[in-house]
Amino acid sequence: MTGFTPKDPDFHARVSADFAKQALMRTIGARLALVEAGRCEISMNKRDDLCQQHGFVHAGITTTLADTAAGYAALSLMPPGAEVLSTEFKINLMNPAAGQSFTARAEVLKPGRTLTVVRSDVWADNDGKRTLIASMLATMICLAGNQSARQ
Amino acid sequence: MTGFTPKDPDFHARVSADFAKQALMRTIGARLALVEAGRCEISMNKRDDLCQQHGFVHAGITTTLADTAAGYAALSLMPPGAEVLSTEFKINLMNPAAGQSFTARAEVLKPGRTLTVVRSDVWADNDGKRTLIASMLATMICLAGNQSARQ
Amino acid sequence: MTGFTPKDPDFHARVSADFAKQALMRTIGARLALVEAGRCEISMNKRDDLCQQHGFVHAGITTTLADTAAGYAALSLMPPGAEVLSTEFKINLMNPAAGQSFTARAEVLKPGRTLTVVRSDVWADNDGKRTLIASMLATMICLAGNQSARQ
Amino acid sequence: MTGFTPKDPDFHARVSADFAKQALMRTIGARLALVEAGRCEISMNKRDDLCQQHGFVHAGITTTLADTAAGYAALSLMPPGAEVLSTEFKINLMNPAAGQSFTARAEVLKPGRTLTVVRSDVWADNDGKRTLIASMLATMICLAGNQSARQ
Repeated sequence: MTGFTPKDPDFHARVSADFAKQALMRTIGARLALVEAGRCEISMNKRDDLCQQHGFVHAGITTTLADTAAGYAALSLMPPGAEVLSTEFKINLMNPAAGQSFTARAEVLKPGRTLTVVRSDVWADNDGKRTLIASMLATMICLAGNQSARQ
Repeated sequence: MTGFTPKDPDFHARVSADFAKQALMRTIGARLALVEAGRCEISMNKRDDLCQQHGFVHAGITTTLADTAAGYAALSLMPPGAEVLSTEFKINLMNPAAGQSFTARAEVLKPGRTLTVVRSDVWADNDGKRTLIASMLATMICLAGNQSARQ
Repeated sequence: MTGFTPKDPDFHARVSADFAKQALMRTIGARLALVEAGRCEISMNKRDDLCQQHGFVHAGITTTLADTAAGYAALSLMPPGAEVLSTEFKINLMNPAAGQSFTARAEVLKPGRTLTVVRSDVWADNDGKRTLIASMLATMICLAGNQSARQ
Repeated sequence: MTGFTPKDPDFHARVSADFAKQALMRTIGARLALVEAGRCEISMNKRDDLCQQHGFVHAGITTTLADTAAGYAALSLMPPGAEVLSTEFKINLMNPAAGQSFTARAEVLKPGRTLTVVRSDVWADNDGKRTLIASMLATMICLAGNQSARQ
């Protein structure tokens, strides 16, 4: 547990419903593996059609997992009706994305009324061995229900 | 033109061949639109299965385009036999990824024997209007042909 | 010119007054070299007491110049009474900070009611030759006059 | 302990000697508070001449602490004779830099022959209360003793 108190007791259902609306998550076969207050995990199996030229999962897909987990870790702490958008992130790709499956684990560092800072790490599982392949630092913005665009 | 002199006169063919090996590029329908010495453009049409919950293209896909263009802008200046890997990047998502098509334009800021710094911007085309939706700053690493892993 | 229309016709005086209140700028001998709508330049001479172990200006000082220029480029487009704070930035250090003087040039990429995205490059001047030593991508936040804290 | 095995048993002395050569560290009153294999802490007292316009320590100084700690965390794992340079970093400024003193704590995430990825957090101490004010993700490069310039 991160020690954060959610503003919306139904945060789990809200995050799950939002995740289900993301077409890209179905396209890449990602699943919501864990949702807690200020924390989220998203997992995905390796698929050849998501790889780059060396046969590893493409950095853009690793980033997609990390970013999506970061967004939902942030959303879990936002009030009812709020929506979340990524404003920016930075990711270091530390090891090749080689493995049978991948999990992004995101954790809120600082929740805020407008901006939430999140750390999100991606792990590869390869024959029972877990390797850290990437680490992200992201800023998420909270949009009230009636705002339709960024900022 | 960026004013850089390529170390490999066949850089265009090398980048094209490498791009063709990236399964993810076919999966998302991306095409190599331009390759020059130190510069690369990659384009993609909007597809609903690449969108997030608000119907915009997912930040992870915008990032995939920007990262891939950045990697090939860097590779165009590397010597024959070299391979390129992303070590890290940061991206600011400035406007919603709304449009009929998207183009990432990458340009090398600083080529180096080991590390190459690249700027990569992503534009949305929407009914003839072009909008800057994201800007990336990336570090690419050059691997000699006989190195199999990052670093 | 960046093509942005300032919301405050007195932006130049406002930026200058704010700069004058920054004790650190005096400490490192930085001067405000240019302020336009959406653009700012800050310069500094080399000083040995600002260097790192190899005799180059420390990356933290290069960053200080880039960040400060970015903040004022953003502030120049904000309404009267607004204050600016850095929420995050990323910088690539591309060449050693060697030279007689250094100039950070910042330009707004995307102004927003809450967040403004700014690019800021740092150049070294060495015997009449100008070298790009660093490039930053930053997010600035606009605080209305009555907000006292970040977010 | 981070679980890393140093390649140089004298890493502590080497880091201390290197730190002592950094003029900027004396200028801002920073001190090396801890050096372990893959970990480093640097502390500094608040000083008015290091502040920005709102009376908080300037983001550039917070960054200087975080970057320097990150560099020495990386250097502690490098072989004898190696030197370290920052290639890039990104920092999120989460809370105002208010307090009597500040400490950056850096920890290596991934050591490498060429590149080392480091996380570095900065804490403010204010009347016995410790607050996380910034988090950095940085890439450090190892230069062998005979290389004089970046890359």
